[in-house]
Amino acid sequence: MSATPSPGRVGDVRRQNLALVLAGIQRNGGATRAQLAAESGLTKASVSSIVADLLESGLVRETYVTRDGERGRPGTGLVLNPARGALAVEINVDYLAVGVLDFAGELTFHETLERHNRGSKPADILPLLVAMAQRAATEAIAAGVELLGGELTVPGLVDTERNVVVAAPNLGWADVELSEELPKILPDAPFGVSLANEAKSAALAELWFGQGADHGTSERFRDFLYISGEVGVGGGLVIESRLFAGPQGHAGEIGHVVVHPDGPLCACGGHGCLETFAGQDAIYSAAGIDPDSTSQQMDQLLSRVAEGDERAVSAVEQAGRYLGIAVASTARVANISAVVLGGHFAVLEEWIAPALRRSLNRHAPGLIPQGNVAFSGLGQTGTLRGAAATSVRRILSRAYELIP
Amino acid sequence: MSATPSPGRVGDVRRQNLALVLAGIQRNGGATRAQLAAESGLTKASVSSIVADLLESGLVRETYVTRDGERGRPGTGLVLNPARGALAVEINVDYLAVGVLDFAGELTFHETLERHNRGSKPADILPLLVAMAQRAATEAIAAGVELLGGELTVPGLVDTERNVVVAAPNLGWADVELSEELPKILPDAPFGVSLANEAKSAALAELWFGQGADHGTSERFRDFLYISGEVGVGGGLVIESRLFAGPQGHAGEIGHVVVHPDGPLCACGGHGCLETFAGQDAIYSAAGIDPDSTSQQMDQLLSRVAEGDERAVSAVEQAGRYLGIAVASTARVANISAVVLGGHFAVLEEWIAPALRRSLNRHAPGLIPQGNVAFSGLGQTGTLRGAAATSVRRILSRAYELIP
Repeated sequence: MSATPSPGRVGDVRRQNLALVLAGIQRNGGATRAQLAAESGLTKASVSSIVADLLESGLVRETYVTRDGERGRPGTGLVLNPARGALAVEINVDYLAVGVLDFAGELTFHETLERHNRGSKPADILPLLVAMAQRAATEAIAAGVELLGGELTVPGLVDTERNVVVAAPNLGWADVELSEELPKILPDAPFGVSLANEAKSAALAELWFGQGADHGTSERFRDFLYISGEVGVGGGLVIESRLFAGPQGHAGEIGHVVVHPDGPLCACGGHGCLETFAGQDAIYSAAGIDPDSTSQQMDQLLSRVAEGDERAVSAVEQAGRYLGIAVASTARVANISAVVLGGHFAVLEEWIAPALRRSLNRHAPGLIPQGNVAFSGLGQTGTLRGAAATSVRRILSRAYELIP
Repeated sequence: MSATPSPGRVGDVRRQNLALVLAGIQRNGGATRAQLAAESGLTKASVSSIVADLLESGLVRETYVTRDGERGRPGTGLVLNPARGALAVEINVDYLAVGVLDFAGELTFHETLERHNRGSKPADILPLLVAMAQRAATEAIAAGVELLGGELTVPGLVDTERNVVVAAPNLGWADVELSEELPKILPDAPFGVSLANEAKSAALAELWFGQGADHGTSERFRDFLYISGEVGVGGGLVIESRLFAGPQGHAGEIGHVVVHPDGPLCACGGHGCLETFAGQDAIYSAAGIDPDSTSQQMDQLLSRVAEGDERAVSAVEQAGRYLGIAVASTARVANISAVVLGGHFAVLEEWIAPALRRSLNRHAPGLIPQGNVAFSGLGQTGTLRGAAATSVRRILSRAYELIP
């Protein structure tokens, strides 16, 4: 008797083979049954049987493909079914948002509602979210997309196993359990709605659709720090093309890296955190713009820096300087040499970037090569796309549940 | 045909089974062949055949064991052979050291030579190290321990695959290749000598012999940051009882976390790094002790703080304060909630600890529970033990090379 792994129960083998075929279709949309067999090492008969199940489940569908250099009639390829999708729902400090991502990776619908959520109770926000989610689901159905699951992101630390928002200081939430609320967002979806951290979702969006994605030309980042600039400053570490979660799933919290020993009190209870210098409200205050006014502060800030207003420019440059310090520290700890900045940092790139580069050069010369400081091109929908794509991956990993 | 893993070549299976049995002996010294069979899922015949090979290789030996609650004559158990061992060699800024660790985990010999190595060329240091290693090997042989391999630690970043010290700024070394020098340290050892970072070795010592080890009573740390206090300040992150290396193997470099935006120039080329406030020389200077004198600065510092000398106490407290900032930042990035301090931080625990705790409380309240700030009890030999134990593990992982 040898100690090679046991093949397990027949059900496990079938699941494993299903996952292999599905991964092949996900990686290589349009692959034929023959290609899937060659790639997976399964027989053509096995692949055909699995594909029949997947077609019946609605997760994949057939498509006609002609490959370059091949002669004869077009083959029948398999793709993830764009008539299936996942919902993303986002609670942030100054807005709520929903989005629909189909299995082809297209964001087919999204909606943002500006709203001051600081101090709002979950009971105030959840009905609004449920209404937005219903509208999104209706739009999805009208567009022929059935939603199978979803993900809710919050600007704070989450315990995904217990569906608890552990701490979202900028909302004023601590230990908020959402087990009863999450199913209401998408009542009929077979895979339910999970909870996620906003910056981690945005980091994954960057990996899958942004700087980490294979665009054919430019070099892809496989190891990078993503920094999310909102009212709070969040972060996510991608190492070897995976989110590095850390022991409790909270790694990469660059917003609370200490950048000045005598810095101001932070919403987290600490002092001198990056967020106190580079969060949106901190920049508005330093620029002389009231962060609590209901007007468009970011538009005000942008026009002031564009005009060369000294106070506004210095506020933004200060944010860049402290970002450089926090990036230097984070890069040392996590052994990272690339960074992608999103949210308001991307909006303010023109003024943030030089200050950030100077600061990196002062505090950690040579650690992050020039070309490895990047700004997100995904705009406001990054978090939604990352969250929905995470949900799609979760659905595909549980595909066997849809198969008799 | 299913996609279950193939059993591979017969040689692979044999290696795998050998590794299983050896891991069983390492984990449970004194295990009988029957126990090893039960634990590994191998047949008794397979285990007996593998054990025969291992006995012949000299890596394990038999011992007579009586288990509690068992009747009859004592059984024959297997243990790693204490007549085999590994060498550790340490280059630090102000000393050189060697140590011998036998396969039973005992440090049977160690020697330290105080020496100012700053600016020393590898060609100056290596002959001294080779002489010390020879003495250690002679002592080992006299004690009946044969050295099968070793590890050389340096206070800097290493590329273990290419045997290069990438940067050890406190020695003044950059891109120093040691492929030719390493074999000279232990010319006859079948597994050679590898290169390692000093703080990472000390972190592993803490995991295997210190706060991470199973002492039966106190809770073990499975996730922690180890901080090494020498002339430089190094660090290692242990996550889920493994060293977290990061993409290039350099994760955990807390010495270069930025703790003050206007801080002084660091040996690394940056500004305001923890090392500029908490490294040995930085503390001596702040305390008014000449770091370049040849006298015993640490003894001077200890007697001054013990006397309540204001300048000395404030220098040490400042180090504790900045340690707190760097630990807060690192804990946020790596999602760590325990820290172990070694080197001079452990020597100065009485004065460092309160300042560190106050600083943690100011910058990241609640992040690191009181009881999770620990000081190493391994003393000066931590790095040697960690390095030699790493070498032992590497030897055991390549045990098949000793078997025909």
